[in-house]
Amino acid sequence: MIGTTAPGCVLAFDDERGFAAALAGALQVPLALIERHRFPDGELRLRLPATLPRSVVLLRSLHQPNEKLVELLIAAPAARELGAQRVVLVCPYLAYMRQDIAFSPGEAVSQRHVAGLLARHFDAVLTVDPHLHRIAALQDVMPGCRAVSMSAAALVGAWVAQRVKRPLLLGPDEESAQWVREAARACSPVPDHAWCVKQRHGDHDVQVTLPPGLRCEGRAVVLIDDMASTGRTLMAAARLALAAGAATVDAAVTHALFTGDAMEALKATGVGQVWSTNCVPHASNSISVVPLLADAVLQC
Amino acid sequence: MIGTTAPGCVLAFDDERGFAAALAGALQVPLALIERHRFPDGELRLRLPATLPRSVVLLRSLHQPNEKLVELLIAAPAARELGAQRVVLVCPYLAYMRQDIAFSPGEAVSQRHVAGLLARHFDAVLTVDPHLHRIAALQDVMPGCRAVSMSAAALVGAWVAQRVKRPLLLGPDEESAQWVREAARACSPVPDHAWCVKQRHGDHDVQVTLPPGLRCEGRAVVLIDDMASTGRTLMAAARLALAAGAATVDAAVTHALFTGDAMEALKATGVGQVWSTNCVPHASNSISVVPLLADAVLQC
Repeated sequence: MIGTTAPGCVLAFDDERGFAAALAGALQVPLALIERHRFPDGELRLRLPATLPRSVVLLRSLHQPNEKLVELLIAAPAARELGAQRVVLVCPYLAYMRQDIAFSPGEAVSQRHVAGLLARHFDAVLTVDPHLHRIAALQDVMPGCRAVSMSAAALVGAWVAQRVKRPLLLGPDEESAQWVREAARACSPVPDHAWCVKQRHGDHDVQVTLPPGLRCEGRAVVLIDDMASTGRTLMAAARLALAAGAATVDAAVTHALFTGDAMEALKATGVGQVWSTNCVPHASNSISVVPLLADAVLQC
Repeated sequence: MIGTTAPGCVLAFDDERGFAAALAGALQVPLALIERHRFPDGELRLRLPATLPRSVVLLRSLHQPNEKLVELLIAAPAARELGAQRVVLVCPYLAYMRQDIAFSPGEAVSQRHVAGLLARHFDAVLTVDPHLHRIAALQDVMPGCRAVSMSAAALVGAWVAQRVKRPLLLGPDEESAQWVREAARACSPVPDHAWCVKQRHGDHDVQVTLPPGLRCEGRAVVLIDDMASTGRTLMAAARLALAAGAATVDAAVTHALFTGDAMEALKATGVGQVWSTNCVPHASNSISVVPLLADAVLQC
């Protein structure tokens, strides 16, 4: 599998040094940090190694994405000028995936525009659980670039199975069904699993209910989703499970965005443990996606 | 000059509403504001008018540039999807122009990469006094796009001539010579003008001196430059002029970036009035570049 396109180094920024070192270790290539200075006027100065190997991997997870996007759009062409002929982006969390249609007339379909930008700058983009809803595959919005999306759901499922006896895996809405199913499949025996039902009665009137017939009494419920941002969706599901008699409610997600007071609010709702992958750096990180992404790099 | 490519509207963001309204007025076209929402996770949602005329002008000045760059890279393709066939960027302040070479090995030449991004997204880019040093023309770093740079130096010169009797226009370094000369030419009679000399004795040892033979005693010195960021260059020149006996020292710049405590530090150094164009919104704005840019739009 390791041929002429095998990476010669991992490039990363200082705030992702830990993840980058683990990725470089798994790939058995050197790690080089990009020096990043922010001038008082807001401009960035980036300094890469003076010469680069033919193929490089650039690591950048895109939580709080805007400034990081600019970094990438400067670093990628700079890497090519310094000798890289192939630049692969490893992007554990890919932002802007939720805005995949114009929800009202005139709205920019940011998913397509941001994905298109990355596609023009990188030979390949590797990511974990992009929030795809109305498009079937990441490749559809990344023409001319190899787009690879891996799922961390099996890792999340295996983690839960090791820590919770006879868990009931519960998705907070139908969109989470794909991750709940895959997490369940990774456990042996396959645990009970289900997902809540969201009914929309109007723009602001959304009702979430437990799936019909689901028994929560005395169960160790573990909420499973691809991402948690404000945490409101997880909180609604947690309240339902607790009201239905669940003994405990924990949560495991791929992308721990957790904006504002999300974690405190989750805890206040009665959620016990919160586990996440290290796609987005967060205190809840407990599951590493490095081996998953290292494999993807070697195969792409 | 107004032909098939005459703009049908000006698109702008709410924080530039005043400038945008004046520009739309000068062009005699409607103004449409782009609705901008920032989600807690840092993503932007932009909403443009549901349908757009064939040719649009998008206004965005790029001080504190990174998030604004992302706005442009989303808004430009969105405008095309909504019917615009020609999208012209009016960018009173164009950021990232100073990083035009690798000052140390491996440094990204951001000027080229940022200019290239804009060139790929816009049919034309119109700006005022870009800080070009080692490249001759903006067009050189914007292939495939019409790049137009206007100078506000004549407007600045005319403003100073109306307010200061027999001014001595002084540039703080050799780079400012082009703006000092043009500002002086706009005055009748042409006032005395000169620029300081910067001698570099090492990486951190820079000495600025008044031009040989310049007499400042009792003069009304007005410092002229294209931009003020930390204000340190202007302050050094102000100190020299005051030490040489200048009666007053005022300053007039095109781009009022004024980061941090720059204005307070200038005043503490003994600088009296500070005037600037409205390219970058700031309390010192007193000279409008709207007529200049409106003309450029109609001619491009």
